[in-house]
Amino acid sequence: MSSSGYTSSGASTPSNGSRPSSPGLGVPYVKLADRIEAKIDRGERWFSLEFFPPRTPQGAANLISRFERMVQGGPMFMDITWHPAGDPGNSNKETSSMSIACAALNYVGHETMLHMSCCNSTKDDVRMHLDKAKELGIRNILALRGDPIVGDEWKYVEDGFNYATDMVKFIRAEFGDYFTVCVAGYPHGHPDSPTYDEDLKHLKEKVDAGADFIITQLFFKADRYVKFVEDCRRIGINVPIIPGVMPIQGYHSLRNLVKLSKLEIPDEIREAIEPIRDNDEAIRNYGVHQAVTMIRELFDSGLVNGLHFYTLNREVATIQILKQIGLWTEDIQRPWPWKRTANYNRCEEEVRPIFWASRPKSYVYRTQEWDEFPNGRWGSSESPAFGELNDYYLFYLKPNAKKEELLDMWGHELTCLQDVCDVFTNYITGRDSKNGKKVRKIPWNDDDLAAETNIINDKLARINSRGVLTINSQPNVNAAPSTDPVVGWGTPGGYVFQKAYLEFFTSRENVQALFKVLPKYPNVNYHIIKYEGDDDYTNCDQQQPIAVTWGVFPGKEIIQPTVVDPVSFKFWKDEAFTLWTEYWGQLYAEDSKSRELIEHIHDTWYLVNLVDNDFPRDNILFTVIEDMFAEADLQRAKGKGQTNGVHLDDDDGVFVNGAGDVPKNGCAEQIQRNREAEVVHAL
Amino acid sequence: MSSSGYTSSGASTPSNGSRPSSPGLGVPYVKLADRIEAKIDRGERWFSLEFFPPRTPQGAANLISRFERMVQGGPMFMDITWHPAGDPGNSNKETSSMSIACAALNYVGHETMLHMSCCNSTKDDVRMHLDKAKELGIRNILALRGDPIVGDEWKYVEDGFNYATDMVKFIRAEFGDYFTVCVAGYPHGHPDSPTYDEDLKHLKEKVDAGADFIITQLFFKADRYVKFVEDCRRIGINVPIIPGVMPIQGYHSLRNLVKLSKLEIPDEIREAIEPIRDNDEAIRNYGVHQAVTMIRELFDSGLVNGLHFYTLNREVATIQILKQIGLWTEDIQRPWPWKRTANYNRCEEEVRPIFWASRPKSYVYRTQEWDEFPNGRWGSSESPAFGELNDYYLFYLKPNAKKEELLDMWGHELTCLQDVCDVFTNYITGRDSKNGKKVRKIPWNDDDLAAETNIINDKLARINSRGVLTINSQPNVNAAPSTDPVVGWGTPGGYVFQKAYLEFFTSRENVQALFKVLPKYPNVNYHIIKYEGDDDYTNCDQQQPIAVTWGVFPGKEIIQPTVVDPVSFKFWKDEAFTLWTEYWGQLYAEDSKSRELIEHIHDTWYLVNLVDNDFPRDNILFTVIEDMFAEADLQRAKGKGQTNGVHLDDDDGVFVNGAGDVPKNGCAEQIQRNREAEVVHAL
Repeated sequence: MSSSGYTSSGASTPSNGSRPSSPGLGVPYVKLADRIEAKIDRGERWFSLEFFPPRTPQGAANLISRFERMVQGGPMFMDITWHPAGDPGNSNKETSSMSIACAALNYVGHETMLHMSCCNSTKDDVRMHLDKAKELGIRNILALRGDPIVGDEWKYVEDGFNYATDMVKFIRAEFGDYFTVCVAGYPHGHPDSPTYDEDLKHLKEKVDAGADFIITQLFFKADRYVKFVEDCRRIGINVPIIPGVMPIQGYHSLRNLVKLSKLEIPDEIREAIEPIRDNDEAIRNYGVHQAVTMIRELFDSGLVNGLHFYTLNREVATIQILKQIGLWTEDIQRPWPWKRTANYNRCEEEVRPIFWASRPKSYVYRTQEWDEFPNGRWGSSESPAFGELNDYYLFYLKPNAKKEELLDMWGHELTCLQDVCDVFTNYITGRDSKNGKKVRKIPWNDDDLAAETNIINDKLARINSRGVLTINSQPNVNAAPSTDPVVGWGTPGGYVFQKAYLEFFTSRENVQALFKVLPKYPNVNYHIIKYEGDDDYTNCDQQQPIAVTWGVFPGKEIIQPTVVDPVSFKFWKDEAFTLWTEYWGQLYAEDSKSRELIEHIHDTWYLVNLVDNDFPRDNILFTVIEDMFAEADLQRAKGKGQTNGVHLDDDDGVFVNGAGDVPKNGCAEQIQRNREAEVVHAL
Repeated sequence: MSSSGYTSSGASTPSNGSRPSSPGLGVPYVKLADRIEAKIDRGERWFSLEFFPPRTPQGAANLISRFERMVQGGPMFMDITWHPAGDPGNSNKETSSMSIACAALNYVGHETMLHMSCCNSTKDDVRMHLDKAKELGIRNILALRGDPIVGDEWKYVEDGFNYATDMVKFIRAEFGDYFTVCVAGYPHGHPDSPTYDEDLKHLKEKVDAGADFIITQLFFKADRYVKFVEDCRRIGINVPIIPGVMPIQGYHSLRNLVKLSKLEIPDEIREAIEPIRDNDEAIRNYGVHQAVTMIRELFDSGLVNGLHFYTLNREVATIQILKQIGLWTEDIQRPWPWKRTANYNRCEEEVRPIFWASRPKSYVYRTQEWDEFPNGRWGSSESPAFGELNDYYLFYLKPNAKKEELLDMWGHELTCLQDVCDVFTNYITGRDSKNGKKVRKIPWNDDDLAAETNIINDKLARINSRGVLTINSQPNVNAAPSTDPVVGWGTPGGYVFQKAYLEFFTSRENVQALFKVLPKYPNVNYHIIKYEGDDDYTNCDQQQPIAVTWGVFPGKEIIQPTVVDPVSFKFWKDEAFTLWTEYWGQLYAEDSKSRELIEHIHDTWYLVNLVDNDFPRDNILFTVIEDMFAEADLQRAKGKGQTNGVHLDDDDGVFVNGAGDVPKNGCAEQIQRNREAEVVHAL
């Protein structure tokens, strides 16, 4: 009974009956070395990308953005070089090797390897670096001897690190199997090695010491790689040997590299590029052609499954090559509604509060100390202790834009609330701001607006223009295929669902009106809170989360990756309110009207979230907001003639004139006119 | 801000951030004493029902069936008396007080109180009984002195149990607050007490020793109860005092009870019943009238929220009274897709495998040793160690029917497979069997067919008549309101979902055909297994359960109470196969053809489960089965001319003539003709 495509489950049930703790789409962590072996076993091709750490903080931010784009193509891992002169192990320095690798792993969310060299290092240094890497979740090390810092000379150190082999031995002795260890191979022989054969012998020592696989130094001809692999196999080196491919991207960079690595450029390449040495584009095109040709030869040799790219921190040529050889696979299918990290600690993480949907890096940062992550459902996670978000200096938590750019987007001067509303409205609609700039981000969004927001963005624009400043929202979704290009996620064949969600800042006046109308909508859950947290109103169970995104997949339990959690909301509100002042307000001079306006919002407005539980019906949340506007209009009409400055009265449950202490300049009237225009439009 | 129906959550969030472990509809266990207090606080009325243990095993089975009917009316708790002459603490004896209370709590699934008397008992005896009660999950004890067994005399025992007070003290000393303790109150004074006042003093001692509430002995006039309560309150007895109400149900039973309790029957009652003393129905009608009148007076006194009924193990009068006073509330809304138990140990249980859907008692029995129950999702439960179902003597696990009745339903003689198929078909359609009897149950169903089965029972009948013997099934459901009378469950305002499920026994020939057609249905999960377990085929993840019933409720995470779990299925298959022989086969003589037929099925057929993951589309499972029939017909046509007795060949994946070793009598041909008739019908 073996021919019908079924499998027998009889034999392989573990006798202890133990269960995988993950019911969902998450998979247990598999070591990189094992994943590479599995790819080879299955004859699947793959690639990895090498980068070096940048010189400046802005360079770091740009590089992380590049990572975000390049992981779309599906590299097996990112690889970060060790820059001995750049304080490489200092995780508090944004340009260090360690920091860049940490960001790639945890914030870009991709499997990452970190180079580490031992030349002129003590055992304590190396142990400290490895400990730090482990603490950050890095599990792959490319162990190098490294070159002495320019000016120093290489010296033999008794009982110290003299060769990469010493480092591999040290890692295995001190960390066991924790790290996947890669070593470098030199198809032309190591420049410091007397002979090619002696170098091969050293490589064998490195592998025997415990290296899992080899990445080769660059070479220009496929036959050089083929010979190298044959020579390795002959002397008993049996681990995978990944060819390192460097696309030629410029005349001078090529010459420098060749000089450093003491290689000779083959005549045919030299002859091809000399005539075009001043034409960068022509050189790059040639480099792409040359690399693709060589890669095809490598594949034809039957020895190669994976390719390692020396990107030189540039993306165009590498992506072109990957596209031409068919390895660049932009998978539009989201594996999860939110962006996962690649940290093995979090591989079973399956549930997050929706609040951080647009700030996943902040969420990862604030939860990095958690021992375990919610799995299956949020309810099973006890005591969500969120770390403080006070490390605003961390480059990956900052908006990747210069102050001037932010001012272009958010306004060089804010004269009234309507100016603030316009920023939100322009962000949602993609319309230019007054000074002709696009608003590509707001402080509450790491990235561009989610595609699904398009479904509701006319409505969002309407309410933002009227002072309901939305920072998070999702439409309701009722059994969309999991492959839906806009709202789908997870494996094919499933169905995904959402409850409509809306989260916004708005004035006390509006919140007062909202309270009047909410009783008409019993299937709407709300949570309304002020900065100080003492005004905190909800009709939810105060402990119980609400699933707002879930999926039903073949052969699985229900996956419910996103929740509105009342406890986490209180942590989020601190962050959400602080973003007004830390990101936006601080762009303006201390005594400026612009800053005063932002601080007024921070101090007096409310943060509101609404969930429409009736997900199979039309989203009611915009109706609730329209109703709130109407009620606020009514109250304002009634309140005409009252003096300004009447404040919230806790006893009679009435806010009066919530905007009373806002800078006066006709702005409230502008919002009011917008409302009337909308009403006319609606009629 | 207090008038808008919202609540502030600011103050009451626990500072330790701890979470309720249940995200679902389950509520934490609340002690009976606290629930009674809460009812009183809210001014809500309630009732409880008292029964005594039966004399015979059949009586026990009948009583449990009565419990099943009477809990529909919503009693606060069931109350089981202690029968000192009946080995009351022996939980292995089906008629003991302990066993009946255990069954009411765990298998009927209702909160239960157990009487326990101490007269002539040692401390070790009482401790052992209380330990046993605790082990079984009983948390409510009515502590009595009890009467000496007839013939013995009451003697004062130094340092022993002389009064109920001693027992209350003992329970509190040894078990702390674990038990809710109730004591008896005597509105007429205890028969052994010299005076009414002295008896009140003893009652005060019992309460001071730690009793939580009082149930009164029976009385006939409301003013007696009122006086008693006033007298109690005057001397500082402040716990709830629940009136015990005994509907007069017969002349002789009344006289006996009155004699035992040394009460006098009021003249007006005596005068009313003497003339009708031989007319049971008239007496019962009078009893209902008398009780309702008295209860109305009790309610009018303002002293009464709850009523305790001395049912005398009869249901008609009590139900009539409860209906007349408006306390009988048959709630058709299922709180859960499956029947919960009332054992506090299981109050957070939220997920069960679908296999035991029609045998909840067996499931509870086989999982009684679990330390914790799956909660939120099945995946989180490790190592489901199911107890063996070898205690077939346990009355609550046996079909509550006599052998003769079972034979009437399942056939006094089975001559061929078609006879077996007919039993299943008649069960599903409600048609009479050959001998004019209804098939009200099959061995795999504790109860009548679930209402939702009606949705698919035409199709079920069709496939059963053709040898696909279904023992469990559910239709697909896509976002039905949780209040749907057929498929709904849980609190109102939610939406419920199901994946279509089908579980059946069928022949090797059919299974072979099934394997041929299954590849056409990639969204169907299957698990196919034989009695021995070595033939075990599935396309499911071997560890991962499939949620087949789930619900989306306002303000909650997703509830997924029913799963198809591949590990549990292997435990279930032992039970499912054994039911053929233990329940059905054993009805026939050892060498009979009937028994041979049942054993043939047990030994050679397969148990199959199918899940259609495409729940929003039409149920595909019956199409799969029809396709299987067509394939089997094809194979049979091809196989014509082959000799009989060719067996399963593991190498070429082919079954031939799976029915070859079945008793030969034209039965297979009959099934075949049914198929052809269906085909003709379909054309």
